[in-house]
This record gives sequence, structure tokens and C-alpha cells, in this order.
Amino acid sequence: MKGRLLGLGVGPGDPELITLKALRLLQSAPVVGYFVAKAKANKGQGGNAFGIIEAHLTTAQRRLPLVYPVTTEKLEPPLTYEDVIADFYDTCAVQIAAELDAGRDVAVICEGDPFFYGSYMYLHDRLAERYEAEVVPGVCSMLGCASVLGTPLVYRNQSLSVLSGVLPEEELEQRLRSAEAAVVMKLGRNFDKVRRVLQRLGLAERAHYVERATMHNQQIVPLDQVDPLASPYFSMILVPGEKWRG
Amino acid sequence: MKGRLLGLGVGPGDPELITLKALRLLQSAPVVGYFVAKAKANKGQGGNAFGIIEAHLTTAQRRLPLVYPVTTEKLEPPLTYEDVIADFYDTCAVQIAAELDAGRDVAVICEGDPFFYGSYMYLHDRLAERYEAEVVPGVCSMLGCASVLGTPLVYRNQSLSVLSGVLPEEELEQRLRSAEAAVVMKLGRNFDKVRRVLQRLGLAERAHYVERATMHNQQIVPLDQVDPLASPYFSMILVPGEKWRG
Repeated sequence: MKGRLLGLGVGPGDPELITLKALRLLQSAPVVGYFVAKAKANKGQGGNAFGIIEAHLTTAQRRLPLVYPVTTEKLEPPLTYEDVIADFYDTCAVQIAAELDAGRDVAVICEGDPFFYGSYMYLHDRLAERYEAEVVPGVCSMLGCASVLGTPLVYRNQSLSVLSGVLPEEELEQRLRSAEAAVVMKLGRNFDKVRRVLQRLGLAERAHYVERATMHNQQIVPLDQVDPLASPYFSMILVPGEKWRG
Repeated sequence: MKGRLLGLGVGPGDPELITLKALRLLQSAPVVGYFVAKAKANKGQGGNAFGIIEAHLTTAQRRLPLVYPVTTEKLEPPLTYEDVIADFYDTCAVQIAAELDAGRDVAVICEGDPFFYGSYMYLHDRLAERYEAEVVPGVCSMLGCASVLGTPLVYRNQSLSVLSGVLPEEELEQRLRSAEAAVVMKLGRNFDKVRRVLQRLGLAERAHYVERATMHNQQIVPLDQVDPLASPYFSMILVPGEKWRG
């Protein structure tokens, strides 16, 4: 009997925002995989998703760190981010397949939701045809942000645009112009560009900025007071839809 | 001491997809409010969100049904949906305020997430300035859909457009044409129009249709086999982003 691949969304940061189902499957899995940046792994740390669930693990459960070879640093040609990261996911898939072939279930934990910009999806695409896979959805970070802001995100029949801060400035502007409500993720070094576009479109007043929503070190900062050089990757801008009186 | 207003996301349908936090606050609340359609209330039923959490309630907790006066039926002029529903939310807010003034916490449960197209937001907008309010985000239905389809929704830096099926056909077409990944909610009687647009744009092959995702009576139906007259309101179409090898 082969093991099962479990992709578990563990929510945006607050450990209490895990679902009953993700917790049950997490505790049932003999092997727990988690993505972690090299800098953190080198310091013996486990990454954000691991921190969310660490307290629930027993010593009998094997930890399988999946250490990103690269995050946001520039690579020297002929190396490309695409090639390096694809090789990495190939290697992760081989490691996990070995556990599954040995009959052990592997739970891969994901901050937020596995299929909403989560790294788990690249393992899923490599393994789900050969092994039984179950995905447990999680509370995604944009809804964690809305909750801590106390701000409804989309009313009634409004359209929501979820955008990445890495988009080129022109594309960001075009997509934000037609948006009724918007979320811009992956800010980090893209913050200044995103704020400039929001200001140009007259959306800065409606925009909210949050760092590490629902985590213990969460910060809500007025948009015009954010230091563009200090904005972390796990920050986000929400432009809620115009209030509808309902 | 006034009571606290709690807006609790209870997830897309599977009772196990509630978070630890929502469950804890639910069980702590002396009053539990829930929205329910008149037809269901008349049959003594509690609505979808209530069904998700019913097993967790004690007899000591008071049930506060909030019965929609209207759902999708046509109204005779001078009545408008907007006026009728605004009056309804006003009345709900008065009822809940009375509990809060008496010092009792009121948990209002919401299918999916409270701030993502949830009716709770209209109570929040009416009450959160006068009373302490806490919102617990939930797993939203579109991520429940992606999980049961086993299909990643958005890769890497793709943009996601979340649209309502009630949009006019031209607007739907325009928004879907520029979308890299899309979710169309609120299908029901809008199904046929949405499918037509997807076919015209060549997106029908990539689209997945799901009814009542994660619920016991969930259905996944090929898009071309859906009966447009039988599609329920709690159905959804997902157009996942093009696979990125990662």
C-alpha cells in the first residue's frame, strides 16, 4: 500500500486559524514536509508554516524540510530562477515519492491555502497522478488581512482582482483601474511601485497595508507611512470594495 | 459591560473545515445568529451555515435565526430588493444590539468567510462602530472548490479575477477575457449566460463546475452536461490558471 500525499492549508499565521480537518490529518501523518528558506533553515528554523503547527507535532513524526535553493536573490546566467526552482521541486517530489512508496503518508503544510499561490501545488502537479492525494483548503492570507482590518473585502456582486506586486507597473495600473475591489500580494521590494500606482489612480485613500496578518508580530501601517525598504514579502495591500448598504 | 459581536467564518460546507478559533468562539457565545432563507425557516430548518455548526451547540445557547424576507424572487414595484434587504439588515442589527446591550456576546455564523461576500458584513457595518467586534476568517468556497477538484487555482504571479454570475453578459466577457485565472460565483439562473461566455472565449475546456463543494451532496459535473435550470445558487465555475511547472 502506497502512502497518501496530503496538502494541508494551515491558515495565514495565527495557529488557531487551522481547520479541524487539517489538524487531524497533520497529526495522523508519519512524515511532515514543509518549505523553508535557506537562511532560516541554516539557523535551524522551520519557516512560517512550520511555526504555525509545530506545537501539534509529536517526536515520532519525522520532519522533512524542503529548503528553497533560492528565494529572491539574483542568479548568475546561465542560471534562471525558473530552472533552479523546477529542479528543486523535482528533487522534493523524488524525496516525497520515496516516503509514499514506503507506505508512509506525507503531509505537506502550506501557509494559507495549498492551491492559492502555495508551493505545494508544484509537488501536487508532479505527484498527484501517481499517488492518492488529498488537499485540505485553508484560510488564505487576504482574508486574514480583511479580518484584522475589520473591513469587508467585497460586497454583493463586486468583482475582486487578486494581483501580484511583481507585475510590471503598466499591467498593475491597468488591472487596478478596472478593479472594484483588489488585493495586491507579494509586496516586499515591489511596495514603492504599487503605492505609486495606487496614488496615481486615486486609490491610496481606500487602500490598507498589513504586514504578517494574524501573526504575533502583525503590523497595520497607514499606506503613506510604510518604509518601502522595510516592507516584508508577507505584506499585502487591500483595496476593499465601496460600501454597499445592504 | 456590553457584549461582543463575533463574525465567524465556518468554512465552505464540510463541518471539519471550521477553524479552531471559530469553534472556540462559537462555543463561548450565549447567542448564535444565523441567516436562513424563509422557505427553509418555514420548514424548521436552519440554513447551510447553521447545519455546519449545529452539532457543536448546547441547549443553553440561544438560536437567533435571521430570516431573509426575500432571496431571488421578483418584487412588485415600488418594492426594490435593495430597500427590502436594507430594512431587513436594519432590523437584524436592532435585534443583535439588544443582546449586546444586555451584555451577551452574539456569534453570527457565516458560510465561507464573513468579509468575502458574506451577509455578516452588513451587520458589521451597522454595529462595529458602537460595539466591540471580532471577525474570524474562514475557508472560502472557491478554495473549497479548488481542493475537491484537485486543481491548483493560481500559479506564481498570475492574477485572479473573482466574478459574480449576475454581471451583465458584456461585462462578464470583458472581465473573463483579461483574466489569467477566474472564479465565477453565484451561478444559479445565471449559469447558461456564464457558460455561453466561456465557450465564446475558448475557456470552456479549462473550466470546472462544482455544486456544493465539500458538502455531503457535492457534485462535480462536466460543464457541457450541466442542466442550466437545475444549477443551484451554491455552485461555482473555476477557470484555473495555466499550469506553471514551478
